[in-house]
Amino acid sequence: MKIVIINSGSSSIKYQLMTMPEQKVLCSGMIDRIGLESSNFTYKTDHHTIEEVVAIANHKIGLEKIAQLLLDDKVGVITSKSEIVAVGHRVVHGGATFSKTVEVTEEVKKEIGVLSQLAPLHNPAHLEGIVVAEEIFPEAKQVVVFDSAFHQTIPEVAYKFAIPNEMLDEHKIRLYGFHGTSVKYVSERAIKYLDKSEKIICIHLGNGCSITAVKDGKSFDHSMGFSPSNGLIMGTRAGDIDQSVIFYLVKTLGYAMDEVSSLLLKKSGMLGLTGYSDLRDIEELAGKGNRECQLALDMNVYRIQKYIGAYTAAMNGLDAIVFTAGIGENSSYIRKSVCANMDFFGLDLDDAKNDLRSKDTREINTASSRTKILVIPTNEELEIANQVYELL
Amino acid sequence: MKIVIINSGSSSIKYQLMTMPEQKVLCSGMIDRIGLESSNFTYKTDHHTIEEVVAIANHKIGLEKIAQLLLDDKVGVITSKSEIVAVGHRVVHGGATFSKTVEVTEEVKKEIGVLSQLAPLHNPAHLEGIVVAEEIFPEAKQVVVFDSAFHQTIPEVAYKFAIPNEMLDEHKIRLYGFHGTSVKYVSERAIKYLDKSEKIICIHLGNGCSITAVKDGKSFDHSMGFSPSNGLIMGTRAGDIDQSVIFYLVKTLGYAMDEVSSLLLKKSGMLGLTGYSDLRDIEELAGKGNRECQLALDMNVYRIQKYIGAYTAAMNGLDAIVFTAGIGENSSYIRKSVCANMDFFGLDLDDAKNDLRSKDTREINTASSRTKILVIPTNEELEIANQVYELL
Repeated sequence: MKIVIINSGSSSIKYQLMTMPEQKVLCSGMIDRIGLESSNFTYKTDHHTIEEVVAIANHKIGLEKIAQLLLDDKVGVITSKSEIVAVGHRVVHGGATFSKTVEVTEEVKKEIGVLSQLAPLHNPAHLEGIVVAEEIFPEAKQVVVFDSAFHQTIPEVAYKFAIPNEMLDEHKIRLYGFHGTSVKYVSERAIKYLDKSEKIICIHLGNGCSITAVKDGKSFDHSMGFSPSNGLIMGTRAGDIDQSVIFYLVKTLGYAMDEVSSLLLKKSGMLGLTGYSDLRDIEELAGKGNRECQLALDMNVYRIQKYIGAYTAAMNGLDAIVFTAGIGENSSYIRKSVCANMDFFGLDLDDAKNDLRSKDTREINTASSRTKILVIPTNEELEIANQVYELL
Repeated sequence: MKIVIINSGSSSIKYQLMTMPEQKVLCSGMIDRIGLESSNFTYKTDHHTIEEVVAIANHKIGLEKIAQLLLDDKVGVITSKSEIVAVGHRVVHGGATFSKTVEVTEEVKKEIGVLSQLAPLHNPAHLEGIVVAEEIFPEAKQVVVFDSAFHQTIPEVAYKFAIPNEMLDEHKIRLYGFHGTSVKYVSERAIKYLDKSEKIICIHLGNGCSITAVKDGKSFDHSMGFSPSNGLIMGTRAGDIDQSVIFYLVKTLGYAMDEVSSLLLKKSGMLGLTGYSDLRDIEELAGKGNRECQLALDMNVYRIQKYIGAYTAAMNGLDAIVFTAGIGENSSYIRKSVCANMDFFGLDLDDAKNDLRSKDTREINTASSRTKILVIPTNEELEIANQVYELL
């Protein structure tokens, strides 16, 4: 069974074509900078790699280009669109409505649109991707996998905010949680690897960053709340911030609400602290003695450590921490710093193992470490394919 | 040397007259509901107690009434105003300007006024108290003790927010910290009691609630930040809240910024969750099976536990936790709940000791508890008197 996986961002599409249940990737690629004059377009199969810089005006043109190549005589991997049984879409915010993977209906699309209020950077792009995919693959089933679904198990004591009850009852304001597709995939691999599933903390450090307490295989608490903005320090997002700062910026310094929102989401985090949002640049500069970069790294690490402490308290124990996603999988510096001075929590890193690079699940603690330290590459596309396949 | 201590709130004055260095309280009392038709007025000496319900229109009339009684033939404790050598004032927000106790000058008053922007509920009332005290005790030295001063030792990695650097450099937006007068007093007593001063967490649970990591006797991290609104769940304050909730309330639900501020500071916390702000009522109702009250207590406790975990990570260890202030000193239920299921952190409560009432420093853990659990009654007035005496 051939399944297309689509992960639409506001100006990007990541895609894969997989056969299930074999989990074989026939084709993968991405388009970014959609709408600008020079989009980066990639298309990879076992035998061909296409990399182009072209203008791609919108998501529809982008997906049509992908479909055309999939069917192409030379580089294609299918001979008819009807081979595609299903298209799986990642959707960031499923709100309180969607607690699991569902097939797309008019009702589902409408609800994803309503939830755009809660994830204005993400949900509209996902909806765009669904509508375009319906046009291009009209015979395929469209399925949506929600990033928030894995977090539906978080207990009320953790998902509720300390604001008047009607905010939850009437306005559905609560912690939802994000990166769930990744955390589900990674935590399940961790549980398999550890052969126990009690108390795990998953640290997802990518473009967005979040941290999740996973107890007995279920999401138990999570650092991103109502929208994907809180918690850890990210590339351009502030993460946790004192509420009174927002009031001060607006009421005393005269900022507009939209300016503050943009400041906290697009100009803060590592970018606001250093002028750079790519952690590799920041690590390199810190290594050369740049004080601002070093402080930003220290702040980033300090916050992760505090969350490890908080979630260890929430679970009253800790069996393993897991690093995943771009930074988590690749930055040995961040991993080493997070594990430093944390022996109260049983973390004892093996520096040599930490420095090795691999695409596999690996253990990087010393043999005597009380708590396991794992690096597990995430694979959201595979998790989506698995869920689509299970649903069908 | 006779010193008057004044703690002015927006509609209240707490006061004491002490002799130093003997630390003898000659007189104490309070006025609340200033400006309303029925203020509660109390005045206590070793021999007399006056409790009245009277209209007190403003702070000046209130302080004049106090001064009159101090000099009264029957109930007074001084024969001339000139006996008062100094008046010590508690000021919540000293910003980045005041790192220690200072004598009042025109410049100091001006700066406290400027800092009202950062503590609009507190600093204006303090300033009012200072101005009135200058008029009533013109010969006394006026001294201000800042609640934020004890937290000046918090490292940059903890006091800086992950927002653009100019927010700190130009606008002084950072974590300042509060309840410092109380935390300083209580942590010093804890260190004396423990005969070691390494890693202590002070949990101040009163009208406002905060938690402080105290490492080697110095404030190391703290839950209230830029203004006294963040961190733990309080009587009417939400404490930590996802930033995006504020944007959603304003941009999607159409709230005005002032309404959101009022919602988070005056209608949230335990009040918003239960309809009650007094913890005694909430504990009683929860005991009778009220689900909302039980959930609110659970949320409150859960957040305290997460902070204990976070600060244990920050310090990489924990020697003792200390409960103080109204709720911390009196609610055996909250103490018991906070210490439950926290054996990873070495907390082992002795239930019988926890249930005892006392005005003294006491240890309520079992003999085998790895981490000490202390209850230490705070005494901000004594701490202020000590600091005023030291300065003079």
